[in-house]
Amino acid sequence: MTSEAQPRADARRNIERILDAAETLLGRDPSASMGDIAAEAGLGRVTVYGHFGSRQALVEAVVRRALLEVDAALQDVDLSGDAGAALERLIQATWQLTVRSGRLLIAAEEALPASTIREMHQGGLEDRVRDFIASAQRRGEFRSDLPTDWFQAIFHAVVHAASTEIHAGRLEPTDATRVITATLLGALTSLQGAS
Amino acid sequence: MTSEAQPRADARRNIERILDAAETLLGRDPSASMGDIAAEAGLGRVTVYGHFGSRQALVEAVVRRALLEVDAALQDVDLSGDAGAALERLIQATWQLTVRSGRLLIAAEEALPASTIREMHQGGLEDRVRDFIASAQRRGEFRSDLPTDWFQAIFHAVVHAASTEIHAGRLEPTDATRVITATLLGALTSLQGAS
Repeated sequence: MTSEAQPRADARRNIERILDAAETLLGRDPSASMGDIAAEAGLGRVTVYGHFGSRQALVEAVVRRALLEVDAALQDVDLSGDAGAALERLIQATWQLTVRSGRLLIAAEEALPASTIREMHQGGLEDRVRDFIASAQRRGEFRSDLPTDWFQAIFHAVVHAASTEIHAGRLEPTDATRVITATLLGALTSLQGAS
Repeated sequence: MTSEAQPRADARRNIERILDAAETLLGRDPSASMGDIAAEAGLGRVTVYGHFGSRQALVEAVVRRALLEVDAALQDVDLSGDAGAALERLIQATWQLTVRSGRLLIAAEEALPASTIREMHQGGLEDRVRDFIASAQRRGEFRSDLPTDWFQAIFHAVVHAASTEIHAGRLEPTDATRVITATLLGALTSLQGAS
């Protein structure tokens, strides 16, 4: 057993080292190469490729791990009470985490197909956002003439647009949560467009 | 001269045939391969790769050509008068064209980095949407506490979200223009979120 358990423990440690190195480097430079990441991890390129068959596979693994942390952090956001105020708290928490992993998201966007990025976002957080929107719609605080699924998609589309616009230099980072909140509250509460 | 002009004319014809074949096939199946496209064009794979070094390069060329047609079609939309009604006309026209090239857009999303897709969308149409939004903001018909650039980004993010949601089976295609219009009018006209 020991002779087999030992290599497996080594492999796990190497995988963690590679993921840590990739998260650090991609957070600094979204175009960091496999060679850069291997050097940062103190491992050979062959070892890195042994665990992650391609740069795309490594980026995907790093983003999956980061999203688990995001899910855990957003569990603590209070979504009770006034829906508008709760939406603002949700946006602030989501945005802090988006900024923290901003360059990593850019690396993900460049390296991974959109369908993979969507699929990775499914899970605990998604269910929580969905339940929050549905409940505010039932109470009449958010408009209910548009589907809950749609508002969930718009929540992500707007947060994502802010990240893209900041990266392109067209939106001030300090302005992001105000702009996201104002846009989403307008979309979720106005009945002007419900002809 | 003739001996050189002839091959160039042939090459141009082949390029058009490849682009036509790719547009047809990718419009039916976003995962169509280079081999499928070569067969549809009645050419060999080597010839196709001679003109487009990779599937990604070919998808990019097809999408660029399709976007030129979109730009031309949207030139005819009347954006004068009431901003809400003009926005609705713009969304209906944009949406018809999005549906027509829906599967092609899916192929583009899968094959191309997000930055390339963004860059390809710059041009005539973008300036027109921007001028329309800025003018409605100046007249007080759209809210002016959020930047014009931001609303332009939101316009595309919302249309794009509708396309994605329909593809995922979460939005009815017949519901799309109503949902997009209601969402954008809410975001562009409400002042509820402008705390």
